[in-house]
Amino acid sequence: MEAVGKLKGGLGIDVFEIDEPRPGPGEVIVEVRATAICGTDLHFYYWDDYARRHNPGFPKVLGHEFSGVVVEVGEGVKRLDIGDRVAAETHIPCGSCYYCRTGRPHICENVKLYGIDTTYGSFTKYTVLPERVAIRIPEEISFEEAALLEPFGVAMHAVSEAGIKPGDTVAVLGCGPIGLFIQQLAKISGASKVIATEVSKYRLNLARKVGAADEVVDALREDPVRRVYELTCRGVDVVFEASGSTKAVKQGLEMVSKSGRVVQVGIARRPTKININTIVEKEVRLVGIAGRLMFSTWYRSIRMVQSRAIDVLQVVTHRLPLRQAPKAFETLSRGEAGKILLIP
Amino acid sequence: MEAVGKLKGGLGIDVFEIDEPRPGPGEVIVEVRATAICGTDLHFYYWDDYARRHNPGFPKVLGHEFSGVVVEVGEGVKRLDIGDRVAAETHIPCGSCYYCRTGRPHICENVKLYGIDTTYGSFTKYTVLPERVAIRIPEEISFEEAALLEPFGVAMHAVSEAGIKPGDTVAVLGCGPIGLFIQQLAKISGASKVIATEVSKYRLNLARKVGAADEVVDALREDPVRRVYELTCRGVDVVFEASGSTKAVKQGLEMVSKSGRVVQVGIARRPTKININTIVEKEVRLVGIAGRLMFSTWYRSIRMVQSRAIDVLQVVTHRLPLRQAPKAFETLSRGEAGKILLIP
Amino acid sequence: MEAVGKLKGGLGIDVFEIDEPRPGPGEVIVEVRATAICGTDLHFYYWDDYARRHNPGFPKVLGHEFSGVVVEVGEGVKRLDIGDRVAAETHIPCGSCYYCRTGRPHICENVKLYGIDTTYGSFTKYTVLPERVAIRIPEEISFEEAALLEPFGVAMHAVSEAGIKPGDTVAVLGCGPIGLFIQQLAKISGASKVIATEVSKYRLNLARKVGAADEVVDALREDPVRRVYELTCRGVDVVFEASGSTKAVKQGLEMVSKSGRVVQVGIARRPTKININTIVEKEVRLVGIAGRLMFSTWYRSIRMVQSRAIDVLQVVTHRLPLRQAPKAFETLSRGEAGKILLIP
Amino acid sequence: MEAVGKLKGGLGIDVFEIDEPRPGPGEVIVEVRATAICGTDLHFYYWDDYARRHNPGFPKVLGHEFSGVVVEVGEGVKRLDIGDRVAAETHIPCGSCYYCRTGRPHICENVKLYGIDTTYGSFTKYTVLPERVAIRIPEEISFEEAALLEPFGVAMHAVSEAGIKPGDTVAVLGCGPIGLFIQQLAKISGASKVIATEVSKYRLNLARKVGAADEVVDALREDPVRRVYELTCRGVDVVFEASGSTKAVKQGLEMVSKSGRVVQVGIARRPTKININTIVEKEVRLVGIAGRLMFSTWYRSIRMVQSRAIDVLQVVTHRLPLRQAPKAFETLSRGEAGKILLIP
Repeated sequence: MEAVGKLKGGLGIDVFEIDEPRPGPGEVIVEVRATAICGTDLHFYYWDDYARRHNPGFPKVLGHEFSGVVVEVGEGVKRLDIGDRVAAETHIPCGSCYYCRTGRPHICENVKLYGIDTTYGSFTKYTVLPERVAIRIPEEISFEEAALLEPFGVAMHAVSEAGIKPGDTVAVLGCGPIGLFIQQLAKISGASKVIATEVSKYRLNLARKVGAADEVVDALREDPVRRVYELTCRGVDVVFEASGSTKAVKQGLEMVSKSGRVVQVGIARRPTKININTIVEKEVRLVGIAGRLMFSTWYRSIRMVQSRAIDVLQVVTHRLPLRQAPKAFETLSRGEAGKILLIP
Repeated sequence: MEAVGKLKGGLGIDVFEIDEPRPGPGEVIVEVRATAICGTDLHFYYWDDYARRHNPGFPKVLGHEFSGVVVEVGEGVKRLDIGDRVAAETHIPCGSCYYCRTGRPHICENVKLYGIDTTYGSFTKYTVLPERVAIRIPEEISFEEAALLEPFGVAMHAVSEAGIKPGDTVAVLGCGPIGLFIQQLAKISGASKVIATEVSKYRLNLARKVGAADEVVDALREDPVRRVYELTCRGVDVVFEASGSTKAVKQGLEMVSKSGRVVQVGIARRPTKININTIVEKEVRLVGIAGRLMFSTWYRSIRMVQSRAIDVLQVVTHRLPLRQAPKAFETLSRGEAGKILLIP
Repeated sequence: MEAVGKLKGGLGIDVFEIDEPRPGPGEVIVEVRATAICGTDLHFYYWDDYARRHNPGFPKVLGHEFSGVVVEVGEGVKRLDIGDRVAAETHIPCGSCYYCRTGRPHICENVKLYGIDTTYGSFTKYTVLPERVAIRIPEEISFEEAALLEPFGVAMHAVSEAGIKPGDTVAVLGCGPIGLFIQQLAKISGASKVIATEVSKYRLNLARKVGAADEVVDALREDPVRRVYELTCRGVDVVFEASGSTKAVKQGLEMVSKSGRVVQVGIARRPTKININTIVEKEVRLVGIAGRLMFSTWYRSIRMVQSRAIDVLQVVTHRLPLRQAPKAFETLSRGEAGKILLIP
Repeated sequence: MEAVGKLKGGLGIDVFEIDEPRPGPGEVIVEVRATAICGTDLHFYYWDDYARRHNPGFPKVLGHEFSGVVVEVGEGVKRLDIGDRVAAETHIPCGSCYYCRTGRPHICENVKLYGIDTTYGSFTKYTVLPERVAIRIPEEISFEEAALLEPFGVAMHAVSEAGIKPGDTVAVLGCGPIGLFIQQLAKISGASKVIATEVSKYRLNLARKVGAADEVVDALREDPVRRVYELTCRGVDVVFEASGSTKAVKQGLEMVSKSGRVVQVGIARRPTKININTIVEKEVRLVGIAGRLMFSTWYRSIRMVQSRAIDVLQVVTHRLPLRQAPKAFETLSRGEAGKILLIP
């Protein structure tokens, strides 16, 4: 079958043929119906340190944001049946470390990442995964929507941990897919005002089109900190840092109000010099967010999409057939896309 | 000036003339622009125990949900100026008890209630109140909206304490003004589904007209507990009990899911037999709500109304000139009104 | 081998011979070194409704609070080895219901109770249980201490959920083993004052001997509510209701301070008439506690016992050989014991 | 009367004569019985930027950690009487900013610091302060103990915000007075293990003498991060950073366990380069602590000292007559003291 991933190291993405996978005990085979490209996949395109550290060998099928239909179940599979519509959690926890045994498998000490540490990801027709990370999806949710539940879950987890109270003001730094999801969610989770900031023209336009934020600030043209104070008098109650930029991390601490919260979602590329005293003097609470809760975030996300209070497909800017993945990666690497869906 | 309240004990409401009030030190005179009738005012209409216990003597002007303009300031008033548009907190805290000294004046041990324990309430042209319970209202909020901020604040406080997380399911028992406000708020505070229950035909219709709840259940015609399980599989994550009915209190404990929360807003008329074991076995959290936080709930409420994510005027069913107050009380006592606004 | 439990329905406890158990897949055989009698076991002694509902058939070995050594492992057991010292969680969760899948197996919808719903409990030489509910115990903790970790865990879970802040005042209603554990824990978890109440002479004496509470109140001789107000001025910040008595439930709500918390641990025998308005006016938070968190409470409990800040054996009043279990049950049924340890 | 503070800029501390203060409206005169030197006072000794920014003019009496007896009350004083024993909160809030109006005066936007921004501090016989920041002290607490309630309150506030659950492991970075108080408090607030780190020989010895920490680590001789992992396997659940050292801030983030909390109490002298990804990947919660809650921390602190579960005087290493203050400042500047008490 056709697959997209890596046949060798180095820059770029390969399209190749690979054998269909066979289910081991406790595993299921899923026919992929929709799949999306994640920022993490770009590491493999660039073949950077992260990719080299994680690569399980060649050929390697990429992709982990997806949905599909169960077509075969391995020995001992109990919760799922052939024909079930599913999406999947990327983190495959060990199940026996301290964090797994204390209800926090999302920070498992021996985690394996589906589609990253495994040979078969979702950029193909049939993929294989442990039953326990597959989540059944109700009929009312389309395959395209379901393929976005994984990244949407990061936004859900971030907003849940932020503890927004009705009337809070919110800033979201970064208008990538996660940032946009957070803007949409904040608006229906109690925020009285949502301010988005971004530096890329493409993403500024996208944020304005999605229209969830009350104000979209071009952080290259005006000082986002000053703008936030103009709009809120005393800074925002909650900041979501969803860009990973060193600059944004600092701006977040400056624009948050006294006794405000900063939720760090973005992965920073390098150590960041921050003013610890700002945290002390303003009694800031800074919270890190890693992935999603397993699996409460998934059930919440499903209910949220079902409620139609939110349209997750608004962040999708491209829909391409699977074999056009190389083009999709190029577009993404230029920063000229929101979420890209690939259809096998 | 004309005023509405009590000239004597017994059933009914009087319209009478009273002298304009004079401001003492730290007090302001406010010209009332809009005022609303609260369930608490009905105690005086019926002249029940509560009224007899609180009555400061005759004549007594009723009313405490209102907005207006400062027209005179007493000695030592600093925060407010003539011309300021204001609404007011009903609880006048002592400022020196343990709860006042620990940031919780809303549960002050020596609280005095404006419009209830005081001679001058808001059902008249000019009223008098301590500067420190007056809250300045921005231009974007109309006098009618501002007059509803006090009861709206109860709903805001309840929803804040409920800690709704995105995707939670919610039931609101009772469709009086507070219940309706909670339904509106829950819907934009993360709830994926809001189910309202009520027994009065009038209020069922009103709830359907307001349209915030996804489902409005006639609790006389069908079993609200069974309906909630049909709609949610395992019960709702959060129950707001906003009726005070003994039956609803029990239904709330039955319809809440395991590890769910019940927020008790309604005042029950008599002791309620509950199954403590339900609370234990389901690990329920039951939280009581009294009034509003002073004054953080007020600032949050103002931002929420300003955001236009919510229209507080939707719960208003009647607007009457002040002198028609007796008719308004009769209508209310028959349960045939949502919120009634009186315009002096 | 010799075992203690039920050979038939009706009042009493039987001593009998039973075959040694064989391990199924994922199960382990544990040689019991110390085991304790729980209040739940008394249901079987009295042969009440609860016992009849749960009984898996005869013969039935009772007992679920215990420790021992793994002597055989079934197929697929990975975490445990022969020779491991273990204690065990009583709740055997299904692993696939909503609560299990969202990190809350202690409130599993299909839970099976070890030693209650199963044929083999711990009142014998060898018992069998699923590996996943067995917890490894470090060398520094004795078998007797380990046998108490299950009930101690209830107290740990209760104190964890109470969120005691340094300087809080605490009341513990009931001086059974769980109540005593809570008194000990509260004292080293931030409480500035711990007040215990109880009606049984035997338990009052035991509480005084354990000595964790600053004040032990004989609730038959003096009004515990009045006493709490004398000792704290405004009521206690936190109440632990650990008796299940209807009276104590009411007293707890009366003696808690405004914005205080009531943690309900005791199982009430019948519906309780409570004053919902007390909860509203005081903004009380009432929290139900069911079992222990799996397995974070276990790890916390182990660290707490290891720290030697607490001596769990202080609540033990009797140590008897296993075959004297019938006598032990009689003593317990008369209320003349704290915790009774049985040694096989 | 004799006073200690500054007669001019530059290094050093002066002893001089100054007129006794007179009480304005709402103010009280307190006869100082015991007073302590705070790290903040050292800014004035060194005459650094902080001192120059805050200095209200010369002569300036230093000192703000103290206790004494009310000897005169100004107009309008209601809560206090002559003869009352009091201590005082350093933060004099404006009472009308957003934070004051929302129950958080400790982060008031217009705060004035008693003994820092005011002419009269506590290093003298009679001092003057607003009634509302004075806290009545019960008889059971000595004047020396009461003089330490202000810094002890910082530790109380930090431990309260940390939300230690029974069985948590704790590290305290820094063994100055606040660090020592936190070690003492953590030990009786649920911690199963307390690990202290410090670089100064003097303070290491002091920490060992106080004896609250289970382990005192010399951070110059061994790697505190490695030591913490040896003692806890997976890092500590809670870190209190109480040194302000750039190195310690980094160590704290490294030694905290996944989903652990870092409470930042120390004021850092310069921006700190931290690894934001550590916060994200471990889902760390970082919380800043500023001062104490007004006044709930005070009431909690009083109850804690009254309970005798803790001896705040253990951190006192020197007691000197007021006029020896210059010598005391020199000793402190060499780092050769815990807390120094001055007796007028």
